[in-house]
Amino acid sequence: MTERPTLGWLASHLGGRLCGMADPASPVEGVSTLEAASSREVCYYGNRKYAKHLMTTRALSVIASTEVETTAKSLIVVKDPYDGFRMALELFAPDRSSGFDGVHPSAVLHPSVSVSSGAVIGPCAVIHRNCIIGKGVSIGSGAVLEAGVFVGDNTVIHSNVTLCAETRVGENTVIHSGTVVGSDGFGFVPDRGGMHRKVPQNGNVVIGSHVEIGANCCIDRAVTGSTVIGDHTKLDNLIQVAHNVTIGNGCLVAAQTGIAGSTAVGDGVVFGGQAGVGGHLVIGSAAVIAAKSGVTKNVPSGATVSGNPCREHMETLKIASASARLPGLLAALKTNGLRAEEGTEET
Amino acid sequence: MTERPTLGWLASHLGGRLCGMADPASPVEGVSTLEAASSREVCYYGNRKYAKHLMTTRALSVIASTEVETTAKSLIVVKDPYDGFRMALELFAPDRSSGFDGVHPSAVLHPSVSVSSGAVIGPCAVIHRNCIIGKGVSIGSGAVLEAGVFVGDNTVIHSNVTLCAETRVGENTVIHSGTVVGSDGFGFVPDRGGMHRKVPQNGNVVIGSHVEIGANCCIDRAVTGSTVIGDHTKLDNLIQVAHNVTIGNGCLVAAQTGIAGSTAVGDGVVFGGQAGVGGHLVIGSAAVIAAKSGVTKNVPSGATVSGNPCREHMETLKIASASARLPGLLAALKTNGLRAEEGTEET
Amino acid sequence: MTERPTLGWLASHLGGRLCGMADPASPVEGVSTLEAASSREVCYYGNRKYAKHLMTTRALSVIASTEVETTAKSLIVVKDPYDGFRMALELFAPDRSSGFDGVHPSAVLHPSVSVSSGAVIGPCAVIHRNCIIGKGVSIGSGAVLEAGVFVGDNTVIHSNVTLCAETRVGENTVIHSGTVVGSDGFGFVPDRGGMHRKVPQNGNVVIGSHVEIGANCCIDRAVTGSTVIGDHTKLDNLIQVAHNVTIGNGCLVAAQTGIAGSTAVGDGVVFGGQAGVGGHLVIGSAAVIAAKSGVTKNVPSGATVSGNPCREHMETLKIASASARLPGLLAALKTNGLRAEEGTEET
Repeated sequence: MTERPTLGWLASHLGGRLCGMADPASPVEGVSTLEAASSREVCYYGNRKYAKHLMTTRALSVIASTEVETTAKSLIVVKDPYDGFRMALELFAPDRSSGFDGVHPSAVLHPSVSVSSGAVIGPCAVIHRNCIIGKGVSIGSGAVLEAGVFVGDNTVIHSNVTLCAETRVGENTVIHSGTVVGSDGFGFVPDRGGMHRKVPQNGNVVIGSHVEIGANCCIDRAVTGSTVIGDHTKLDNLIQVAHNVTIGNGCLVAAQTGIAGSTAVGDGVVFGGQAGVGGHLVIGSAAVIAAKSGVTKNVPSGATVSGNPCREHMETLKIASASARLPGLLAALKTNGLRAEEGTEET
Repeated sequence: MTERPTLGWLASHLGGRLCGMADPASPVEGVSTLEAASSREVCYYGNRKYAKHLMTTRALSVIASTEVETTAKSLIVVKDPYDGFRMALELFAPDRSSGFDGVHPSAVLHPSVSVSSGAVIGPCAVIHRNCIIGKGVSIGSGAVLEAGVFVGDNTVIHSNVTLCAETRVGENTVIHSGTVVGSDGFGFVPDRGGMHRKVPQNGNVVIGSHVEIGANCCIDRAVTGSTVIGDHTKLDNLIQVAHNVTIGNGCLVAAQTGIAGSTAVGDGVVFGGQAGVGGHLVIGSAAVIAAKSGVTKNVPSGATVSGNPCREHMETLKIASASARLPGLLAALKTNGLRAEEGTEET
Repeated sequence: MTERPTLGWLASHLGGRLCGMADPASPVEGVSTLEAASSREVCYYGNRKYAKHLMTTRALSVIASTEVETTAKSLIVVKDPYDGFRMALELFAPDRSSGFDGVHPSAVLHPSVSVSSGAVIGPCAVIHRNCIIGKGVSIGSGAVLEAGVFVGDNTVIHSNVTLCAETRVGENTVIHSGTVVGSDGFGFVPDRGGMHRKVPQNGNVVIGSHVEIGANCCIDRAVTGSTVIGDHTKLDNLIQVAHNVTIGNGCLVAAQTGIAGSTAVGDGVVFGGQAGVGGHLVIGSAAVIAAKSGVTKNVPSGATVSGNPCREHMETLKIASASARLPGLLAALKTNGLRAEEGTEET
C-alpha cells in the first residue's frame, strides 16, 4: 500500500458498497475480529452465531452481506463476506521481509546451481549440486536443497526446510519451516536373523503448483518413480506422506494426518486432523475422512467416513449412539433375567 | 559446583537429614535410580512399588521420606523425595555448554537487530530485521528468528528452532530444537473451481514466560490477533497448536496432541498424548483430556474426558466395559431366540 | 557402476537365471514397477494380486520366482523376488552426492572436536565442544551436534538434524532430516501455585548400530541414565520416544507412533502407525501393536494387540463386530418390548 488506506478506498478494493454513517475518508489501520477490532480496524460478519458481537463491536466498519443492511453499524456490503475478509487481509498483510536481498553471502551454493532472476536466497541456506531455482523464488534462512532439486517460479521455501535430492516443486507453491521433503521411505526386507535389510529408495517427490505444505511435515521419496502431491492441494502441519503415495489436486489435509505407502488419493479429498490411512488403498475424489479416522479399506468417491476402523459416517454415528445405550441395556436385560458373560459367545 | 560434593553437602542443600551409616564426607558423583545407581551415586525412593529395589540398591544414599527411616540404608530424609530428587538433579546438572560464547562470527544478524548484554548467539544462527533479543538469552546453532521477533530475558531458543516473523516470547522460557513458532495457520476459502484461495494469516504468536515447548512442535500464527500460550504452560514434543488457539497458564500438554483453530483452553488443563481437540471449542480450567481423546465439544472446568468422540471419563469406561460384554450378550440372546441383524433398526 | 549394465550382468549380480526371449546384452537403465516400467527397465513380480500387470508390463525383464516361469515375458528367476528387487535397487541407486567433500569451510567445528578420516561435514553444519566423529561419517548441511556427541563409523546424519549434548550414535546408522535426538524429556513437579518446576534431564540418548531413524522424529534424553534405541531397529517419521524409554533390537516403528516415558520395548516388536504407548510399561519381544492402538498395560511377548484401550487383537475384532450389530439388536429388542435407556444401569 503506497497511500494511507481509507474506508472508501477499502470498500472500493473489495468491490463493496459502503453504507451507514462512517466517513469514507476515515483511515483504516487493519483487519480484526468483531470482538477484538479497535475503532480504526474493520472486521467481518458471516455467521449468525456471532450476531450479538455485531451489535457491540467497536470496529470502524464491518464487511457483511446485504442481509444485515438494516443495522446502525457502518458496513461494507459485499456478496461473500468471508472472501471480502480474505481480500482485506491481503490488502493489510504485514511486511515480513527479512531485510536480506538477493543471494546472501553466507548462503552456500554449489557452482553447478542455476539461480534465475529475482530469486532470494537467505543467510546460511545451502544448495547442493545441480539444483535449479526458478524466477522470483524465495529460499529461507537455513534451508537445505540437496542435489538435483528443482524449484519452480515464485515458490517460497521457508526457513530451515529440507528438500532432499531430486525433489521437484512446482510454481507458486509454499513450503513452511521444518518440513522435510524427500527423505527415504520406510522400506525394509526381513532378514534371516530377525534383522532388516534396507530397500533403497531410488525415487523422488514431485510437488505440484499452488500447493501449500505446513510446518514439520514429512513427505517421503518413492521406492521407484515419484511420491506426488497434486496442484492446489494444501497440507497442514506435522503430516506424514509415505513413499509412493499420490495425492490428487485440490485436497485439504488437516494436521497430524498420516498416509501410508502407495495409497492413491483422488482430487478434492478432505482429511480431518490425526486421520490415519493404511497403505495400498484408493481414496476416491471428493471423499471426506473425518478427524482421527483409521482408514483400513478403499473409500468410494464422495463418501464420508469416520471411526477406527472407519465406516460410512452415518453408520459410525449409529453404532456410537447404540453403544452409549449399552450399559442401560445390560441393566434392563439383567432385570429381565438374562445374563451376558464376557467372551462366552459360541458360534 | 566449585567444590567436590559430599553426602553431607548434598543433604544440607536438599534441606534434608542424613541418617544411617554413610560417612557425610563421602564424595557424591551423581544422581541415578534405585536400580542403576553405583556406590558413588544417590537416588530417590518415592513409590512403594519399588520397595524391593530399596533393599538391593547399591546407591551411596537414598533420598526418601521419614516413613522408611527404619531401613539399614543410608538415607537423606526430606519431606518430598521427588522434589529432593529434582533438586539433586539440578545440583548435578552436566555442563552442556557449546564452547562458543557471545555472538558467534558465523551468525548472521541484520544490522537493525538489538541484542542485550549477556546474550549468546550460536554459530550459523540467523536473525532478521528488527528482532529484539533480551538479556541473557541463548539462541542455538542454526536457529532462525524472522523479522520483528522479540525474545524476553533469559529465554533459551535451542538449535534449529524457527521463530517466524513477529513472534513474541516471554522471559525464562525454553523452546526445544526443530520447533516452528508462527508459521501460517491453515486457512483457505473454497473457490469456484474446487481450488482454495489462501486466507492471509496476518496475526502472530505470543508465548508467555516460564513456558517450555518441546521439540518439533508447530504453533501457528493467528489470522488476526495472536495465538497465545500462557505463562508456566509446558508442551511436550510434536504438538500442533493451530491459529488463534489460546492456551491458559500452567497447562501440561503431552506429546503429539493437536488443538484445532480458535479453541480456548483454560488454566491448568492437562492433555494426555495424541489427544485431538476440534476447533472453536472451550476447554475449561483444570480439565483433564485423556490420551488419544477426540474432543468434539466444550469440556467443562474440572472435567475428565476420554474416548473418541470424548465423553466424561467414567461414562467412557462404562461403555467400554459394556462393549466388552457384548459378544457374550449376543450369544446369550441367540440362545434365547432373539436375532439382531446389523443395520435393521427402524426409528 | 563403472560399466554400462546389461540384462545379463544384472541377472548374474542377482544370482538369478535369465529366461525368456530378451537378449542378455540389452542395456538396463533402471528399476521400476510392473505398471510404470519402460522397455529399458526391469521390475519385479511377487504378489498374485498383480498378475494382470505381469501380462501387460512393458518392462525389459521381470524379477520373479520359478512359479511364473511359463510366462512369455523375459524373466530373471530368483528365489526371493522382493529381495532381488532390493538388490537391483541397490545396483541402480542414483548418485545423490552433494558436490561438497571433506569438511566444508562454512561448517563450524569447535577446536576440541575430533574428526576421523574420511568424514564429510556439510556446509553450515555446527559441531560443539568435545564431539567425536567416526571414520567415514557424513554430517549433513545445517546439522547441529551439541557438546560431547559421539558418532560411530560410517553413520549418516542428514541435513538439519539436531543431536543434543551427550548423544551417542553407533555405527552404520542413518538419521534423517529434521530429527531431534536428545532434547529434554517432559518432566515437571507440580508446584504449590499450580505451576510446574522442571525436573532436570541429566541423562542422554544412546542409539545403536545399523539403526535408521526417519525424519522429524523426537527422541528425548533420559532423566538419569539413557534413553536407548537398540541395534537394527528402524523408526519411520514423526515418532516420539520419551525419556528413559528403551527399545530393543530389530524393532520396526511406523510413522507418528508415540512411546511414553520409561516404557521398555523388547526385541523385534512391530508398531503400526499412530500407535500410542503409555509410560512405565513393558512390551514383550515380537509383540505386534496395530496401527492407532492405545496401549495402556503391559503386552506379552508375541502378542498382537489393537484398539484403544488395546486388547488382544482377536478380541478387539469380536467386540467391533458385535458393536456393529448393536443398532439392529436394539431395534429387535424394542420389537420384543424391552427398552434400554442410556445410563440407567444400577449395580
